Amino acid sequence: GISRWELYNRKDPNLAQLTHYLATQHILGSVQKKGGTQLKLLISFPNYGQALLKPMKQTRHAETDVNLFYFSDFERHNAEIAAFHLDRLLGFNRIPPVVGRLINVTTEIKEITTDRRLSKTFFTSPAGNVCFYGQCEYYCSVEHPVCGQPHMLEVSLATMLPDLTIAPRRSWRSPWRRSYSRTKLAQWEKDPAYCDTVKQTPPYNQGTRLVDLIDMAVLDFLMSNMDRHHYETFEQFGNNTFLLHLDNGRAFGRHSQDEPSILAPLQQCCRIRRSTFLRLRLLSLPDFRLSDIMRESLTQDPLSRVAPLLSEPHLSALDRRLAKVLQVVQTCQEKHDDLD
Amino acid sequence: GISRWELYNRKDPNLAQLTHYLATQHILGSVQKKGGTQLKLLISFPNYGQALLKPMKQTRHAETDVNLFYFSDFERHNAEIAAFHLDRLLGFNRIPPVVGRLINVTTEIKEITTDRRLSKTFFTSPAGNVCFYGQCEYYCSVEHPVCGQPHMLEVSLATMLPDLTIAPRRSWRSPWRRSYSRTKLAQWEKDPAYCDTVKQTPPYNQGTRLVDLIDMAVLDFLMSNMDRHHYETFEQFGNNTFLLHLDNGRAFGRHSQDEPSILAPLQQCCRIRRSTFLRLRLLSLPDFRLSDIMRESLTQDPLSRVAPLLSEPHLSALDRRLAKVLQVVQTCQEKHDDLD
Repeated sequence: GISRWELYNRKDPNLAQLTHYLATQHILGSVQKKGGTQLKLLISFPNYGQALLKPMKQTRHAETDVNLFYFSDFERHNAEIAAFHLDRLLGFNRIPPVVGRLINVTTEIKEITTDRRLSKTFFTSPAGNVCFYGQCEYYCSVEHPVCGQPHMLEVSLATMLPDLTIAPRRSWRSPWRRSYSRTKLAQWEKDPAYCDTVKQTPPYNQGTRLVDLIDMAVLDFLMSNMDRHHYETFEQFGNNTFLLHLDNGRAFGRHSQDEPSILAPLQQCCRIRRSTFLRLRLLSLPDFRLSDIMRESLTQDPLSRVAPLLSEPHLSALDRRLAKVLQVVQTCQEKHDDLD
Repeated sequence: GISRWELYNRKDPNLAQLTHYLATQHILGSVQKKGGTQLKLLISFPNYGQALLKPMKQTRHAETDVNLFYFSDFERHNAEIAAFHLDRLLGFNRIPPVVGRLINVTTEIKEITTDRRLSKTFFTSPAGNVCFYGQCEYYCSVEHPVCGQPHMLEVSLATMLPDLTIAPRRSWRSPWRRSYSRTKLAQWEKDPAYCDTVKQTPPYNQGTRLVDLIDMAVLDFLMSNMDRHHYETFEQFGNNTFLLHLDNGRAFGRHSQDEPSILAPLQQCCRIRRSTFLRLRLLSLPDFRLSDIMRESLTQDPLSRVAPLLSEPHLSALDRRLAKVLQVVQTCQEKHDDLD
């Protein structure tokens, strides 16, 4: 049900069926997924469907170390799940459905994988748990194992997009991309008038691309995701289509702090889609408080039976950040009034 | 004051002078120390003396992850300090004096080092702290930085032994060495009569070498150090001399659990030096309780002003483990009585 405007329709009955399938269906195969820097697996199902698996690597209440850069942060399975729910509640519907699941590391990965590079990294830890680490650029070593307890492991399963041969996608480098260096600053961090340049550069000079990007910045600020270097679109819809919000594993790493730089596109361009603004205002009202609606929404995920997918500090951070977004919008409005 | 029997005399007035010097003297130089797998620095002082620096990498209350092997465990600066105190209280005097110190990462390492490989790993973290990671086999990466707050860092400084040209040392592989593999077992783990073989093998077949090794096992069990693959002796004293208990950074990693396999030499050989046994029995009496004496001893270290060098759970683990050692000795005595 992918359209030019959204990845799925919130009311499509297939949606509930799809997440139920991911959460319960027998797993046929598990291999490592190439690309990216951290360990993830590609899971196959009997209907030839596939899902992207990210394992739990740290406890829910662990906050990212203050001395780590965003590009060194672990990916979190619960961030993938929570991002899907948040994106849907904001009315975007631009993240492929993600569901949590408890899997058996031994019977659902180790014993069925055909991936030699993966299977030779399995071992039994000193505590008697079945662990593995795979082969990848970061954190794929015996010092950073992924472990069952002793077999059961929490994971996120994300719906795979249609194959690239059927629905080719285009990858775009975000104009507000970070430098991914521990010393260099990006252009947008140095130039307060950076948005003027972007506004004149295709594809941001026409259509909805700029406000789409600002939607994405709002989503990322709310969940404190600093790792949005690229975004993708479906090629067949050309430039006039929604942006896919893929790869949200580094969101929800820190609840005690906000990262204002993520809002730079909104702050520097002073533009926001009207429907987004109205939705944000609605979610700031006591009866529709974002944290309450997220808490409620996340209970639909199977893993919420194990433990809440977002801890209360993370949920209240959402309300605090939403107020900050609305504050930035108001400052923009006042500035424009001044100009009139 | 090194003798054939011990590394220092507990009553030597130079000892207090030496530790005071390490704790307070102006630092002239800091470079990376080669060898070993984790980051350590070599510090130089105006009197041409040198010390081995190990930085604080985790908080005092952090316990080693249950899924990590002993060979993947971080080194701890406070373990080096506490090991020196414990070894002294046991009457061994076989660990070079170690003292804690707060150093300024910027003025005492970054600005004075001549080590290019070290200095290019310095950076300012997102939290504004001065950090570095050096170059080594394990944990020397931006994902595992050593950070000041923003400049001050807790470290341990261990006295360097006399230069190898003056006092050459011999390194011995421990017969109870672990396999350092996540799958293989060592011979002593499979063969309960392993000690009979060792007892017939030089240098363990004569002199005090076997009871020296068992002293070391008792020390290691008390502080839960699984990483004693080798030990050293001073060559000039031949085979009839004390064993150096060097490199204790992986001790005190877990207080909630004991590791009985460390006691294998005592358990399998059923021998213990009489003076060690008497000392252990003394330290189990209410008036001389090991935990109380350690707590008291550690307050002499300058870093105890920042925070206790061992947390209370670690101190009470010492008493619990001491009781276990005495239990093993008693079981041996009963077995021998049976044989009589």
